[in-house]
Amino acid sequence: MKDCCTLAVDAMGGDAGVGVTVPGARMALERHPDLRVLLYGDSATLKPLLAEFPRALRQRVEVRHADVAIRMDEKPSQALRKGRRVSSMWLAIEAVREGKAQAAVSAGNTGALMAMSLFVLKPMTGIKRPAIAGLWPTMRGQSIVLDLGATIGADAEQLVDYAIMGEAMARSLLHVEQPSVGLLNVGVEEIKGVEEVRRAGRILREAALPIHYHGFVEGDDIAKGTVDVFVTEGFTGNIALKTAEGTARQIADFLRRELTASWWTKLGALLARGALRNLKKKLDPRESNGGIFLGLNGIVVKSHGGTDALGFANALTHAREVALYDLVENIARDLSAKKMMADFLDTRQENGAQQAAPARNAG
Amino acid sequence: MKDCCTLAVDAMGGDAGVGVTVPGARMALERHPDLRVLLYGDSATLKPLLAEFPRALRQRVEVRHADVAIRMDEKPSQALRKGRRVSSMWLAIEAVREGKAQAAVSAGNTGALMAMSLFVLKPMTGIKRPAIAGLWPTMRGQSIVLDLGATIGADAEQLVDYAIMGEAMARSLLHVEQPSVGLLNVGVEEIKGVEEVRRAGRILREAALPIHYHGFVEGDDIAKGTVDVFVTEGFTGNIALKTAEGTARQIADFLRRELTASWWTKLGALLARGALRNLKKKLDPRESNGGIFLGLNGIVVKSHGGTDALGFANALTHAREVALYDLVENIARDLSAKKMMADFLDTRQENGAQQAAPARNAG
Repeated sequence: MKDCCTLAVDAMGGDAGVGVTVPGARMALERHPDLRVLLYGDSATLKPLLAEFPRALRQRVEVRHADVAIRMDEKPSQALRKGRRVSSMWLAIEAVREGKAQAAVSAGNTGALMAMSLFVLKPMTGIKRPAIAGLWPTMRGQSIVLDLGATIGADAEQLVDYAIMGEAMARSLLHVEQPSVGLLNVGVEEIKGVEEVRRAGRILREAALPIHYHGFVEGDDIAKGTVDVFVTEGFTGNIALKTAEGTARQIADFLRRELTASWWTKLGALLARGALRNLKKKLDPRESNGGIFLGLNGIVVKSHGGTDALGFANALTHAREVALYDLVENIARDLSAKKMMADFLDTRQENGAQQAAPARNAG
Repeated sequence: MKDCCTLAVDAMGGDAGVGVTVPGARMALERHPDLRVLLYGDSATLKPLLAEFPRALRQRVEVRHADVAIRMDEKPSQALRKGRRVSSMWLAIEAVREGKAQAAVSAGNTGALMAMSLFVLKPMTGIKRPAIAGLWPTMRGQSIVLDLGATIGADAEQLVDYAIMGEAMARSLLHVEQPSVGLLNVGVEEIKGVEEVRRAGRILREAALPIHYHGFVEGDDIAKGTVDVFVTEGFTGNIALKTAEGTARQIADFLRRELTASWWTKLGALLARGALRNLKKKLDPRESNGGIFLGLNGIVVKSHGGTDALGFANALTHAREVALYDLVENIARDLSAKKMMADFLDTRQENGAQQAAPARNAG
């Protein structure tokens, strides 16, 4: 494990802006003594806030002034026009391209962040569209789910690319040697899912990629943690993620209402408060905050716009881990291995066909 | 509210077959004194089981012999070849077509049940593909979500039909005068969802249908119960449903583990056991068991294959309620109103265009 790392932080992004990003960055700096942060934003706003940091932390933060802050409701095209080369979001991403930082983190608007990331970092060779991958707490620990909404729709080749990228991310973040990969599908008998999912399944099964392909999985397999990596296209992935978040909040809400219904239940809740606190921590969306953009020549991490300082600090922690494990280099290696494997199989099949023909004739 | 009703039950369907369907039917008969049940299946198996029913209940059940039981793993095409006119599943559906029963209920395999239902009952006039609609417990009570997996993919017109059918079901089952309807979409800024969802949104907003169209909703709106009816295509709907079910089980599992971790938490759980029981009931998938096939000339209800007697009884209760409120007739009326409205708007637009042209010329 190498020494890590500098993160470029869009200090103006998110619903609360510097009110969350600055204390969040501070928490991350306290957690990780090897971490350095470049804070992009309005320096007149940021400098007084940094003045309150302890000296030891302050030495690991630099403010980089940016004239423009991208609003949460701006369209990607607007954001690009207005924020190109001058916004805190753009400059944070550019720091990654220039090698000044190993990853960029923003709680700003997803569309603008993705558009700028594509523009500045460019897709990796062989990748058509990027994906957003997230950590998902399961009964077995954590899994990775992608795409959470970067791209609507995906053809079979894109789904295979997601499988490769998600697998590399699982090796890096989950520390699994041979992560298992599943394709999300429906279990209804007459319809084994959309054609693209079936085709992606055939490729993953037959193409002899160095991936442990488990097969099709269903929605309830995510919570079970049946595989380490769940692959689906962005529309379904986004709705699955938000449905699960909604369900978790709903159950927490039911539980709270029930436990405050009488003195007996209140006393019970008091005695069991350690257990309830642990449950709350397990359900806390801040724990898995930080969607990772995969498929670009550099790492960009998207924090929830409405998170607090703890959630934002967690996004920085995830960015740090991904940077630490050379995710982009790992994915690039896997993609080129896939390309080589495909070429090799093509050649072998052709040779095989040529050899088989005379053999049959001879016999 | 009229007197209700006879349900045709596929007694051989489901993972446990008669071991669940017969006691489930018994529970439903005990609940609803107005209910009659036709039990389709192997009479040599069924008759001895019915002999154990109290006399008063036995008078409201009739066994109808069927030679063939459809297996859970059979493909729809196999099931049709093997089970046409002779299987318990087919005969139960046929009882609805013939008016002997107001709804059919089966815990058998979904693909076979949908194929036979389509074959026997036929789609309603104007409906291209049927949908499966389910009740979903929310923070506000219950909502309806469709399609849960009858059809993969849906064009804008199909989504509008789902909206109409779901709205009628909400009026019937949720007893809401003017149910609100939302289209599931992703909230990511750069991509306001698939083209078909956007087109369906435009039609629902502009076509002046007698529907309270709320707009786009996201995955977490389901748990919030933001609208009464959530419309999406079957792939996404199926994965959202199973993801939510998985999440609920995961949280229940976390809670159980945490509450049994120490003597303090165990004592707390004992004191709060009423609250925990209520929560368990709220999370119990048996409570909302029974997916309703919409868009056919008759009601078919699909119970979970792995449910128990209580779950199966609940599917019968839902079938009874839907039959009670003339769901099919309500949907037919709404669809023809939609057709009339569309024709009227077309005519008016044409007239309007003709009138506008001379007016401009005159001016």
